[in-house]
Amino acid sequence: MTLDQLQSQFEVFKAKKLALDMSRGKPSAAQLDLSNELLDVVTSKDYLSFQGAETRNYGGLDGLPETKELFKDFLEVSSVEEVVIGGNASLTIMHDIVSRGITHGMCDSEHPWGKAPIKFICPVPGYDRHFSICQHFGIEMIPVSCNDNGPDMDKVEQLVAKDASIKGIWIVPKYSNPTGLSCSDEVVDRLSTMKTAANDFRVFWDNAYAVHHLSEDQDVLKNILATCKAAGNANRPFILCSTSKITFAGAGVSGVGGSIENMDWYRGHLFFSTIGPDKLNQVRHNRFFKNIEGLYVHMKKHGALLKPRFDKTLSILKSELGETGLATWTQPKGGYFISLDVPNGCAKRVVGLAAEAGVKLTGAGATYPGNNDPNDSNIRLAPSCPSIDEIEQAMQIVCLATKIAAIEIGIIKNSVLN
Amino acid sequence: MTLDQLQSQFEVFKAKKLALDMSRGKPSAAQLDLSNELLDVVTSKDYLSFQGAETRNYGGLDGLPETKELFKDFLEVSSVEEVVIGGNASLTIMHDIVSRGITHGMCDSEHPWGKAPIKFICPVPGYDRHFSICQHFGIEMIPVSCNDNGPDMDKVEQLVAKDASIKGIWIVPKYSNPTGLSCSDEVVDRLSTMKTAANDFRVFWDNAYAVHHLSEDQDVLKNILATCKAAGNANRPFILCSTSKITFAGAGVSGVGGSIENMDWYRGHLFFSTIGPDKLNQVRHNRFFKNIEGLYVHMKKHGALLKPRFDKTLSILKSELGETGLATWTQPKGGYFISLDVPNGCAKRVVGLAAEAGVKLTGAGATYPGNNDPNDSNIRLAPSCPSIDEIEQAMQIVCLATKIAAIEIGIIKNSVLN
Repeated sequence: MTLDQLQSQFEVFKAKKLALDMSRGKPSAAQLDLSNELLDVVTSKDYLSFQGAETRNYGGLDGLPETKELFKDFLEVSSVEEVVIGGNASLTIMHDIVSRGITHGMCDSEHPWGKAPIKFICPVPGYDRHFSICQHFGIEMIPVSCNDNGPDMDKVEQLVAKDASIKGIWIVPKYSNPTGLSCSDEVVDRLSTMKTAANDFRVFWDNAYAVHHLSEDQDVLKNILATCKAAGNANRPFILCSTSKITFAGAGVSGVGGSIENMDWYRGHLFFSTIGPDKLNQVRHNRFFKNIEGLYVHMKKHGALLKPRFDKTLSILKSELGETGLATWTQPKGGYFISLDVPNGCAKRVVGLAAEAGVKLTGAGATYPGNNDPNDSNIRLAPSCPSIDEIEQAMQIVCLATKIAAIEIGIIKNSVLN
Repeated sequence: MTLDQLQSQFEVFKAKKLALDMSRGKPSAAQLDLSNELLDVVTSKDYLSFQGAETRNYGGLDGLPETKELFKDFLEVSSVEEVVIGGNASLTIMHDIVSRGITHGMCDSEHPWGKAPIKFICPVPGYDRHFSICQHFGIEMIPVSCNDNGPDMDKVEQLVAKDASIKGIWIVPKYSNPTGLSCSDEVVDRLSTMKTAANDFRVFWDNAYAVHHLSEDQDVLKNILATCKAAGNANRPFILCSTSKITFAGAGVSGVGGSIENMDWYRGHLFFSTIGPDKLNQVRHNRFFKNIEGLYVHMKKHGALLKPRFDKTLSILKSELGETGLATWTQPKGGYFISLDVPNGCAKRVVGLAAEAGVKLTGAGATYPGNNDPNDSNIRLAPSCPSIDEIEQAMQIVCLATKIAAIEIGIIKNSVLN
């Protein structure tokens, strides 16, 4: 097929004046509907905690006992003392911990992190909000590339061993944003046991997709807190999660887990900024799920809505680009994203062409610190929100755009494409 | 009456093994009941915003339009652009603003506040949580005493005029914690117009009791943002409020108001830490109140519950201490507190004696920075939670303890008291 022919096809799509969006990792309306009962389980007649406690007044700095119990299982920590419940966003907790690190330091810091320049390791491609936090606080970001089983640990170990100004690493361990891939046991072990020049080094274990499986074929990860404890590095991980992509994205419950020393440090800080998170919303979540098994059952319903969307995305990629050799992509078992790599130098162009044809994609580069994808090749695809039909059209356009961009840049000749 | 006789009376109270609490400025169960409908106005069938917007998904960094509209009136600012909606606590916003000041500085700061030692003026007696924030960030606190109409402005003006390291002042302008008194127009004017050596000086206008009147006899304050704007100091005030003592103390909605430049600065910071506050809880509040008039009507019900409690507290103070000359106290028209001044050197002893007899009071000194009341004379009374009968007993004990402490310290002779 010639560039002319591809462009003719492209013009046909443009003429449709579509408005499709595969840019945002947010739940669809159908997914939100799965949790509507959450809005009915607390009423004016019935609002007490499981233990009969008042939930409308002040108190409960780190959460209701029953919510901490649920999150203990969710965060996979071993006691409720290793849990702190937050507000409606784990992003807030992550920002908060870094901010308090800058002003005060961790429980085992010699000085506040802000006393001298510090660095974080940023596995790439990764989550733009992690990078934004670093940028905001002037934390130098060191990109480290990811393999199919997590960050390049040879590189990570080498970096942290020699540089005491490296204070943290961002990890989305399961069904990562954007690759959808998970850390292997070896990566968990090496993150837990590696020697760090900084004795206040932290792993920000953002387990945003901990229970977000597409099917029964699930990734099971080694327990980061247990392996860190076994290695004598109990204070290394902060484990983050929330129900944003489980119940309601704006009205869920977040939590953080870690060593009791870390959690006591955080509770100590929270005293200065809150009387405690919304207990009524905690009660809603406890009543809705009952326990972690209830949460697992609920997640199967999400998976059933998401799987056909992932399948459709992958099937179009395969049928349109599979034999061209132009692109590679991940095939996740869970999460919200598929990571697509188009030819070097083409990602911005593909995103731009898609936009011309009415398909909004995550900005090229967004998965890299400073918005800078050195290869200009990575594109994050978010299939959760559009319908199957919309995904079909959007992905046809993305694939077409990839072919056009590849020809424009001279990587392939017109005639190579069928 | 002799010390022996007073102590006999005291033993009678002790023998009752009471457990009364006048320590916490929190709503009573009856007050919380006033807002129970809040738990029924959003259901699985009906959860959209007034404008029909989805409220279960991500989005709305600074609040729903309708909630900003309500808070525009609540905060007494002139446009929704001058409002940012927060989570469930204005304390969190205050901590947040100071923290971001430390790490980044205000919109008009030359450097982050944390680059050099800074100071805040702390009117005393005041709110311990304000002082805690300063203490937490190593901000030096300069106590300035309060008159019946606000802080001693001669002193405040003198301090801020010459010291550029003074970056802020805490003010609870209406029905202050703990005095229950309000700032006069003159104080508002002088705070708004005074020359400050720091050009990034801020007034933290914590209007926690903005609408918390006990009756129709209400304090009306001059508008701080308007006066600051008129004086060319539009960026000076951050106006804080929440519905913690209006709806539910743990599940309300908070907000901050100020110049658009200040609010844009804050919105810019919030981008890094949140996708936005819980919109469903905003919808609950909008439906419950409908508009600011609805909120005012609601507050009359609170006043009706609080007024007899304040009256009882004041009547016991008058009958038991009125003619002794031992104590002075405030007579607020609103808020949550009465400020009692016992003879110098007696506050700790009175609080201790009351505790022995089963009456929990706010710790003596809590109303001063560093918990240090130089006169050891101020005691904060919180009549909202106990019943009228409980207040009667508790206040009898407080007054008896005051007499005993005064005799012990030698201020009065046994025989002076009737």
